[in-house]
Amino acid sequence: MRNVTKQEVHNASIPQLKQLCEEMRKEIFSTVSSCGGHLSSNLGIVELTVALHRVFDFPHDKIVFDVGHQCYPHKLLSGRAEKFHTLRKSGGISGFPKRAESAYDCYDTGHAGTALSAALGIAKARDLKCDKFQVIALIGDGSFNNGLIFEALNSLRILNTNILIILNDNGMSISPTVGGTYEVLSEMKEGAAPIEDIKLFERFGLTYMGVYNGNDFNSLLPALVQAKEKLSEQSVLLHVTTKKGQGYSFCEREPQETHGVSPNTKKATLKEYSSALGDELTNLAHSDKRIVAVTAAMTDSLGLRGFFDAYPDRAFDVGICEEHASVLCAALASEGLKPYYAIYSTFLQRAFDEIIHDVCGQDLPVTFCIDRAGITGADGETHQGIFDLSYLSFIPNLTIAIPKDIGEFRAMLRMSSQYPHPLAIRYPREGIEGQVNALEIGKFEILHSNVSNIILFAAGERCLTIAKNIQLCAQKEGIDFTVINARFLKPLDEELLLSRKEKYIVTLEDNVLIGGLGDAINRFYMNSGKTVRNFGYRDAFIPHGETSALSRDYGLNEEEVLACIREFYARG
Amino acid sequence: MRNVTKQEVHNASIPQLKQLCEEMRKEIFSTVSSCGGHLSSNLGIVELTVALHRVFDFPHDKIVFDVGHQCYPHKLLSGRAEKFHTLRKSGGISGFPKRAESAYDCYDTGHAGTALSAALGIAKARDLKCDKFQVIALIGDGSFNNGLIFEALNSLRILNTNILIILNDNGMSISPTVGGTYEVLSEMKEGAAPIEDIKLFERFGLTYMGVYNGNDFNSLLPALVQAKEKLSEQSVLLHVTTKKGQGYSFCEREPQETHGVSPNTKKATLKEYSSALGDELTNLAHSDKRIVAVTAAMTDSLGLRGFFDAYPDRAFDVGICEEHASVLCAALASEGLKPYYAIYSTFLQRAFDEIIHDVCGQDLPVTFCIDRAGITGADGETHQGIFDLSYLSFIPNLTIAIPKDIGEFRAMLRMSSQYPHPLAIRYPREGIEGQVNALEIGKFEILHSNVSNIILFAAGERCLTIAKNIQLCAQKEGIDFTVINARFLKPLDEELLLSRKEKYIVTLEDNVLIGGLGDAINRFYMNSGKTVRNFGYRDAFIPHGETSALSRDYGLNEEEVLACIREFYARG
Repeated sequence: MRNVTKQEVHNASIPQLKQLCEEMRKEIFSTVSSCGGHLSSNLGIVELTVALHRVFDFPHDKIVFDVGHQCYPHKLLSGRAEKFHTLRKSGGISGFPKRAESAYDCYDTGHAGTALSAALGIAKARDLKCDKFQVIALIGDGSFNNGLIFEALNSLRILNTNILIILNDNGMSISPTVGGTYEVLSEMKEGAAPIEDIKLFERFGLTYMGVYNGNDFNSLLPALVQAKEKLSEQSVLLHVTTKKGQGYSFCEREPQETHGVSPNTKKATLKEYSSALGDELTNLAHSDKRIVAVTAAMTDSLGLRGFFDAYPDRAFDVGICEEHASVLCAALASEGLKPYYAIYSTFLQRAFDEIIHDVCGQDLPVTFCIDRAGITGADGETHQGIFDLSYLSFIPNLTIAIPKDIGEFRAMLRMSSQYPHPLAIRYPREGIEGQVNALEIGKFEILHSNVSNIILFAAGERCLTIAKNIQLCAQKEGIDFTVINARFLKPLDEELLLSRKEKYIVTLEDNVLIGGLGDAINRFYMNSGKTVRNFGYRDAFIPHGETSALSRDYGLNEEEVLACIREFYARG
Repeated sequence: MRNVTKQEVHNASIPQLKQLCEEMRKEIFSTVSSCGGHLSSNLGIVELTVALHRVFDFPHDKIVFDVGHQCYPHKLLSGRAEKFHTLRKSGGISGFPKRAESAYDCYDTGHAGTALSAALGIAKARDLKCDKFQVIALIGDGSFNNGLIFEALNSLRILNTNILIILNDNGMSISPTVGGTYEVLSEMKEGAAPIEDIKLFERFGLTYMGVYNGNDFNSLLPALVQAKEKLSEQSVLLHVTTKKGQGYSFCEREPQETHGVSPNTKKATLKEYSSALGDELTNLAHSDKRIVAVTAAMTDSLGLRGFFDAYPDRAFDVGICEEHASVLCAALASEGLKPYYAIYSTFLQRAFDEIIHDVCGQDLPVTFCIDRAGITGADGETHQGIFDLSYLSFIPNLTIAIPKDIGEFRAMLRMSSQYPHPLAIRYPREGIEGQVNALEIGKFEILHSNVSNIILFAAGERCLTIAKNIQLCAQKEGIDFTVINARFLKPLDEELLLSRKEKYIVTLEDNVLIGGLGDAINRFYMNSGKTVRNFGYRDAFIPHGETSALSRDYGLNEEEVLACIREFYARG
């Protein structure tokens, strides 16, 4: 799509704006079809974004997108239309707002609930600097459940600055939005907003305006103009309904299916770990009534739809409330139940304090099923699961397991049901089924044994695949080494480590190097006289791109590992 | 005080209950005077606790105390009165609820905002197990600002279980409660509760009852009986006002001063790091208009009262909202301001994701002033600041500084004002003023140089004090070694590390060993042939007790370090 100028959007007639929306939808649909990305949320917000660009003066005015996955129309209208076909590709347009990419992106987002705090900070800084511009926070109804939003709402009066909050209400988080907050919002949509809710917002320091049809310029444009005028006096909450997937009937019907779309390049041989989670947990729960499952608005992506259908009274989707979910699990476990909390690696960061304070502090048998661990690729910095080994490794009472394939993941899940302590199992999105071997807490597995001076410890499927590839290459050169499946970061298999006679140690992990497996092995072998070389990600945020290319470029480079093996072999 | 039986509380007349309250207040006052602890919150809640023990059947019924510092009256009524004089002492009664201590403590707390999620989890488990008992969450108005509470409130309808929430409204967090939520609560107190608020609670799935005088049995007892009856039908929010410090006029007048009380054993020679923070920041802000300060309900304990008085429009106490404070800082910095976020080490855990996602992900110059780092002593597991080096060390873009004394802390603060990246400075509660030396980011300081085979790296005042003590002992034995002030965990002083010729390395840190300074030094020296020994805390939650004894028992034992030095010396 060609770049559209600010002037064009300002001068266009309503029919021309509608025409522009159609072009934008086509561009989004075709780009997401080939690059993958967030589809239905972006289709839903096209008119709203066009209207915002019509009424406000970006980048002088500033807009913060909560979560940020709905920023595609904004990117199309801010000089990035011609590059939009590079979406989510290495070096191309990011799928999220990025300050480094454009002056139109004033604040980076990716995780839910930050936009209101961010907009308040930007507006407060504006006031202190005696600047004049408008600040907008665009927030989906799913995020409105999140504690951070509430904390920011609470401080509106304290900060005493004026912003425009747009509640983009499409009834969906990724799963349908749930909970009391949404009940309130729903009532407001069904008729005129009840006076008590309006009053409530007022006491928080907000003028409520709503409900407007966010896919209709005739409703939107006057509302935005009016809201903008009010901003000189007070903060405004503008409640807008949009239709997720608007304009594409399949997306409208299936907004969950089309929330995140993968490009058509998936390897058919790979399976999803999430399916295994769903199957195993549903099976286990059949005979073990203690088992309950908790998710934070990601039931489907985590593979738990079947469990939720089979055991609706033992399955809880609490909305985008990662912290609450963690405490809830701790409490369920404190009464003898066996909770499984499934969540993406990057989102579990939100529950860090609760893992320490509630789950591990009380040594309660909660199992964290940590999906999307390691580099996840196209979503970029805010979605890489590269820190979990580091932020979990030092928490007392926690066992950390890293399956080598889906088969081993299944075995770990079966084992977990009888395990009476906190347990974290971290795994990537997809892999091979593999085969189930004997499994014991804290015991590594010898995958390939060879009498040589070199031993390689690899954690998780990506690293073991690299190990396997390297071994094939090395063997052709007459070099062989022992390969260990380092499937527990904690407890380490100290017995095995102690017994090994190899002089040269190589470690591989799909995590940043600081605080992960390499450091644990270093600590163990510190004064042993052995030579250790660690491979994992260097100390950096990893941008969007293709998963295996990123993995290679940021520290897991097969050539480098092979060169290291060769060097160790040569040293003898 | 003697232990009181359940029967006594049930059978007592109102005058007898009042008499009991008086005894309890005396016991609390005298014990806290000698042991330190939380005073005014516990004095305020005596009648409410007695009334709860009268109306409910503990430990069959279960009560979760939010934060938990207000559990003293509950401990006095649950068989722990005779041991209460051991409060906060090693092996004695904990100042917080502890499952391990009594069946009357069903859930451990310490950080704010967890009680509602915890009570919901306990109640849901009860329902699934077809048990019958009541579950109560006792929550202060300060915690009602916290995002976690809101997340739990949001899921009341999802979880579909009945609990009693008691809002203990005393108008205080530690600082006076602030924000929109409290505005709402205040209006409810001032007259009859406005119908709109009652309706709002109903839509979240709660029956609202209030406002009752929580220091008056005639108001409380019938209200609790009525609330208990309603629980068979629905969840109830009982709004109770109590007077923080009730019964002791000084405490009533100065609830902040008497929130946390130190025993009269403080060393007069030690100063508070927090005072230095207040002084330096106030000075810096005079000439640097970019400087703003943010706290989460701890203005006084962090030393920032002076700053808040001097620059009221550049100082923000956002209530117990650690996450929001972090995002707010990131956004203020994104607009060119220079925010300082002062917080205790253990509470910063709550903002972990926001440190990564908002501050460091965007490489914004927020300075985290991390107080109460290291072992803090009498508050126990939930308040030790022993994880921060580990949870910060692997975050890209973050610089981590550890001052050796208050003088160096001042120098770091002055340096920070020109530093254009995220910075964390972690320091203990108190120390010596010391002397300001030249300071450069990422450069260690050689404190004592000696031509020997041994070099010791120590981070922070506690460890450098230990180093000094050991050196004195060692010198008497004719042993000497070089001592380095390892004042930056990140970036490490690689130039210095590379240049050192010593064969034996000792590291000391006031943090758990996993993921801290020791691991960083190990990583650096891994294949150097040097022998490294790390001292820091072992992989455990550290209970309450006397700070230096705990430090010794959990890994920083001077005798052991000295023995290590002797051994290295002997090896030559």
